[in-house]
Amino acid sequence: MHAQVAQDSLLDQCRSLAERARRASRSLATASGAAKDRWLRCSADALRSRVDAVLDANDRDVAAAPEFGLTAAATDRLRLNPDRVNQIATALEEVAALPDPVGEVIEGYRRPNGLEVTKLRVPLGVIFMMYESRPNVTADAAALCVKSGNAAILRGGKEARHTNLALHGVLAEHLELAGLPRDAVQYVGVPDREAVGQLLGMPEFIDLAIPRGGESLIRRVVAEAKMPVLKHYQGNCHVYVDASAQRTMAVSIVVNAKAQRPGVCNAAETLLVHRAIAPRFLPEAAQELKDVGVELRGDEAARAIVPSMKPAAPEDWDTEYLDKILAVAVVDDLDGAVSHIARHGSGHTEAIVTSDLAAARRFVAEVDSSAVLVNASTRFNDGGQLGLGAEIGISTDKFHARGPCGLRELTTTKWVVYGDGHVRG
Amino acid sequence: MHAQVAQDSLLDQCRSLAERARRASRSLATASGAAKDRWLRCSADALRSRVDAVLDANDRDVAAAPEFGLTAAATDRLRLNPDRVNQIATALEEVAALPDPVGEVIEGYRRPNGLEVTKLRVPLGVIFMMYESRPNVTADAAALCVKSGNAAILRGGKEARHTNLALHGVLAEHLELAGLPRDAVQYVGVPDREAVGQLLGMPEFIDLAIPRGGESLIRRVVAEAKMPVLKHYQGNCHVYVDASAQRTMAVSIVVNAKAQRPGVCNAAETLLVHRAIAPRFLPEAAQELKDVGVELRGDEAARAIVPSMKPAAPEDWDTEYLDKILAVAVVDDLDGAVSHIARHGSGHTEAIVTSDLAAARRFVAEVDSSAVLVNASTRFNDGGQLGLGAEIGISTDKFHARGPCGLRELTTTKWVVYGDGHVRG
Repeated sequence: MHAQVAQDSLLDQCRSLAERARRASRSLATASGAAKDRWLRCSADALRSRVDAVLDANDRDVAAAPEFGLTAAATDRLRLNPDRVNQIATALEEVAALPDPVGEVIEGYRRPNGLEVTKLRVPLGVIFMMYESRPNVTADAAALCVKSGNAAILRGGKEARHTNLALHGVLAEHLELAGLPRDAVQYVGVPDREAVGQLLGMPEFIDLAIPRGGESLIRRVVAEAKMPVLKHYQGNCHVYVDASAQRTMAVSIVVNAKAQRPGVCNAAETLLVHRAIAPRFLPEAAQELKDVGVELRGDEAARAIVPSMKPAAPEDWDTEYLDKILAVAVVDDLDGAVSHIARHGSGHTEAIVTSDLAAARRFVAEVDSSAVLVNASTRFNDGGQLGLGAEIGISTDKFHARGPCGLRELTTTKWVVYGDGHVRG
Repeated sequence: MHAQVAQDSLLDQCRSLAERARRASRSLATASGAAKDRWLRCSADALRSRVDAVLDANDRDVAAAPEFGLTAAATDRLRLNPDRVNQIATALEEVAALPDPVGEVIEGYRRPNGLEVTKLRVPLGVIFMMYESRPNVTADAAALCVKSGNAAILRGGKEARHTNLALHGVLAEHLELAGLPRDAVQYVGVPDREAVGQLLGMPEFIDLAIPRGGESLIRRVVAEAKMPVLKHYQGNCHVYVDASAQRTMAVSIVVNAKAQRPGVCNAAETLLVHRAIAPRFLPEAAQELKDVGVELRGDEAARAIVPSMKPAAPEDWDTEYLDKILAVAVVDDLDGAVSHIARHGSGHTEAIVTSDLAAARRFVAEVDSSAVLVNASTRFNDGGQLGLGAEIGISTDKFHARGPCGLRELTTTKWVVYGDGHVRG
């Protein structure tokens, strides 16, 4: 009985929060770009002037980190300092400097009967963002949602609760001062984990769910959400070194794709090498990869050339290591590379290194991933690097946006038609 | 035991069909526009030269219509004749004449570091189309899917089975002749209704489900589908007549929106009238609507002006009549109209009739529907009327495409990046 009452009250709380977000989204949709940018700039100033309060809250989370079983690396990601708070503030100002996507006329023309047709960019409505990662996501996500005219519902990890609430407090108190609805950015403060499930069941109030974190979080959100989810499960990314590749370029791209930041989704996990270049290329690549601490796991043909490689097990081709490990396979030709990618890839990012125009064109046409790169590292599949200005996540789905998602990808469209009394005959 | 074997065999059949579609989609993705258009034109020719075989199949369906309990109107929609077959052929040729959406460069620029970035339009993959309506959907859907580079899996209603199979036969036999994969267009021939459920559970092979028919079909598909669904549940469309409307224009738009074709999704279902114009406008409108056989159901204020109206019940505001019935409410002002639409609308199509620029601009900004029209009939929210060339359905979702969906809306994008050995620093 008690449990039921608690459930009802949690449901009521969640519903009330989601309803307030929906109402806020209506007035945010017509808010001026000036008001949104004013809010971003005031919040940045306030963060800088109240850095001590944010750091105090952060100290409480860092102190409790061992209780949550956080590793040293995870605790480091959680820890803020004056420089990191300043970076969060600067990121807000960078979003303020981006063009307002709302109201952009994407298409427009006059029909033969004189109807004037335009297709406008408009906000999605309410976005529910769940994340496990660094506290800066609280500010980044709020900034991207509000700048694109959407109300944000934020839910960070419990290990960063005090920090997230402090950051949210600074952001929220400047909304009304800037002329925006006070419920434009809400943080789900109830510790109860059930709150997430309740909110994911409210498609009437929430238009989009964005989970950012490990694959298990994402699978849970996809299983429970009654609204669309912007996501990728994995970045099992490939670099294919073609027969005609310049070897030095190929080595430098493979090393960069694997080792520059191994823990992120656009890092390479498997290297595919054309049979004709393997005997010269693989020993060079293996040496350089070894020098930066990468462990190689090869198929038989690769190990025949570089015997020091560990043997790859079948599951290696499907594994996103997020670590300094690289699977290596020798393929007969470009078709072999494309088939391997079709079978094992996650549709995230693939790169070819080649000097052959036909090979480049075929790889680009036949590989079905959110981004395909020619003679460049997989690490460039990123909103900042592709020029989107900022990124809320990368989607490997084919619906709506695919690849890095910036401000535009948080909008939908509306057809607007002006006539002079037009009726259909 | 027997039932289990039958289930397994059905699952195998569905899986095999879906796998073949997936394989076909890979080669369709790189098929030339010339091959796709050749197929469309050859199929049109073949349909015309084999009209007798198609009409024979159709006779069998029409003869069996009473068994399925089809009404006279539904039987008429099912019935083909030489002219209707010719129209189906002509529609194929019209799709052939549209530009190929695949490979269109949507954006492209050079980054400061010299990376050349383009965003290309590419097919979604495999589309599963379920429909209850006229047999022409078999040809229309196949044409739109293949022209946009997607493999099609078609499933029409059992009452049109023979006709659909005959049409599919003509379309399918010209695929290989035109240089396209033979499995680019498949028809789900097994009568077992479970086949639909099986296919809806295969997101690994099918990228998009499109149900076209009544709301119960659509709700079933949304409940079962593990892949995105392109759909609208209802078209509960509104016309708002503002205080400043030209009365003659307003009457003609309301009559057109309601009565020109009452059974379709973009027909108006509710008329909202500003209090200031109601006493003069409503009697005129009521007379003209009565003349074309429309029944009016009004709120108290409307009935005080036109007492012959029936009283509207609360559920009238949420009803898509798809018939010659119109709900009528008097509102205090534009805010009242916008609130009524936010509460009762289905996000499909709304129109305002006004002479006031500020009212037009506010209505366009504040009404959150796939299309908003100013001084034009709701009937214009249609792929053909908006210039998309052809339409596979109308989406009221905000994700992916919103509004009428033509060839472009059956595609996704791929980022393609060319470098000269670029790595991230």
